[in-house]
Amino acid sequence: MDFKTLVEHVAARAERKRVAVVWAADLHSQEAVAEALRLGIVEVVFVGAREWIEKNPVLATLSDKWTYVDAANADDAAKLAVRLCREGGAEVLMKGLINTDNLLKAVLDKENGLLPKGRVMTHITATSLPVYKKLLFFTDPAVIPYPTPVQRAEQVRYVIDICRRLGVEEPKVSLIHCTEKVNEKHFPFTVDYTYLIADAAEGKFGSCIVDGPLDVKTSVDAEAMRTKGINSKIDGEADALVFPDIISGNVFYKTISLFPGVETAAMLVGPQVPVVLTSRGDSMLTKLYSIALASI
Amino acid sequence: MDFKTLVEHVAARAERKRVAVVWAADLHSQEAVAEALRLGIVEVVFVGAREWIEKNPVLATLSDKWTYVDAANADDAAKLAVRLCREGGAEVLMKGLINTDNLLKAVLDKENGLLPKGRVMTHITATSLPVYKKLLFFTDPAVIPYPTPVQRAEQVRYVIDICRRLGVEEPKVSLIHCTEKVNEKHFPFTVDYTYLIADAAEGKFGSCIVDGPLDVKTSVDAEAMRTKGINSKIDGEADALVFPDIISGNVFYKTISLFPGVETAAMLVGPQVPVVLTSRGDSMLTKLYSIALASI
Repeated sequence: MDFKTLVEHVAARAERKRVAVVWAADLHSQEAVAEALRLGIVEVVFVGAREWIEKNPVLATLSDKWTYVDAANADDAAKLAVRLCREGGAEVLMKGLINTDNLLKAVLDKENGLLPKGRVMTHITATSLPVYKKLLFFTDPAVIPYPTPVQRAEQVRYVIDICRRLGVEEPKVSLIHCTEKVNEKHFPFTVDYTYLIADAAEGKFGSCIVDGPLDVKTSVDAEAMRTKGINSKIDGEADALVFPDIISGNVFYKTISLFPGVETAAMLVGPQVPVVLTSRGDSMLTKLYSIALASI
Repeated sequence: MDFKTLVEHVAARAERKRVAVVWAADLHSQEAVAEALRLGIVEVVFVGAREWIEKNPVLATLSDKWTYVDAANADDAAKLAVRLCREGGAEVLMKGLINTDNLLKAVLDKENGLLPKGRVMTHITATSLPVYKKLLFFTDPAVIPYPTPVQRAEQVRYVIDICRRLGVEEPKVSLIHCTEKVNEKHFPFTVDYTYLIADAAEGKFGSCIVDGPLDVKTSVDAEAMRTKGINSKIDGEADALVFPDIISGNVFYKTISLFPGVETAAMLVGPQVPVVLTSRGDSMLTKLYSIALASI
């Protein structure tokens, strides 16, 4: 599975997920939506910012493929779009020209938001590395600073769920560290890893392989794993990397972004519907792939 | 400055540093040393493992360029090589076929070792990224789990010192995090960063620019820095990245190693002489560049 296959996979389905786009007054979210509409992978309802949407000539040619709900301003649009998702009128929420914090305020609103009490919200990214034969998922480069064992278990559950929906029957999840040694004194999270691995072995997450601690290299490079004499069922073929904290996750995210030919797609999971937070700095493809990922 | 220039730079000097190689019974350390001798960038004294060294036909043709000191076994060789360095008989220590922990035991020995009391030992790596126009140094992917403010100040001092010896008059050091925001509650080290930056501004490290927190991408990508509206004298042109902990440093190290065309060189600094720890998995060039880096 690569990103092109992912887009084809989404396009080939009979049903289209409906994306609610909050205040799409900016060209970069309009572009991404227009491309997704052109490829026919989703349906779209724009919430607010009619004036700016109608000015976009590409969206005008696609006007039979989207609808519009009025809103007075960006914050209002966020609330309305969230309500639409709550009530089943849309299955994906997408950020337009609105501050991320303001959008998340509506998403996380205790009474009218999208995150049921007790649910964990985390950030999941998929990437295509030139040297790797499949999509690689990872979490969390952006939301949870230092996951608790409960939050980490949910991260594992989410990535396994996504991999499975993409046809991976036994997803391989690597729990990341700088070595393969459990070290309670300096790195207590490596002890948490052992419990998580035991839970996975007992079937808590269904069919899957969860192992660690492992470093980034050995997780995705079978030869490096053999050279180091490590024996793991991950076997250098991880489908997903779970980072111990937001810093190491973010370093991975930002480092791969330095290399040409690397694409990523990202979303927030945990809320009732996935949330796409594309930003100005993202490439056209990243935006498109993020919409596709959130629609699987 | 790139790695080729680094090697030329070392080769062009009148003096040659002397490298003590501990128990070079393995082909991979022999190869690296042979290449360094062939290029004439160092002098070499092998400590122990004569039988294996004499079997190497390439080293035989270079026999006028190296000397030999006898040792009964690898651990003995480590002790002898360390003594040689203490007494000024060698300016670089290099690992052969000996367990890293055993070599470090000799280096860190309180009475006869190479690390004066109170000195901080840390791991410094240099890398050439295809998209970046200069060598990028970073610390610490391998030795100090969570640097204290004092240890971090020494890391900054060491990388600045190396950059300066390579001709960078005002080294730019980026203190890494996942955002550019100081956050005392979740990330107390970002507060430590502010003190370190103040010390640098007061001239504690000589002419240099130290700034942060900054993420990996904005540290080395001026356009990304501008897109995010960040105002920093690093200006997307960092000479060195200082990571908050060993995990994030290691993730950077391992992630760049996944990409073709990326070379690295590494050494331990802090001991009386730099220590080169090349390993079987390293490429020929990584080994050679590490010897060159330790010899500047």
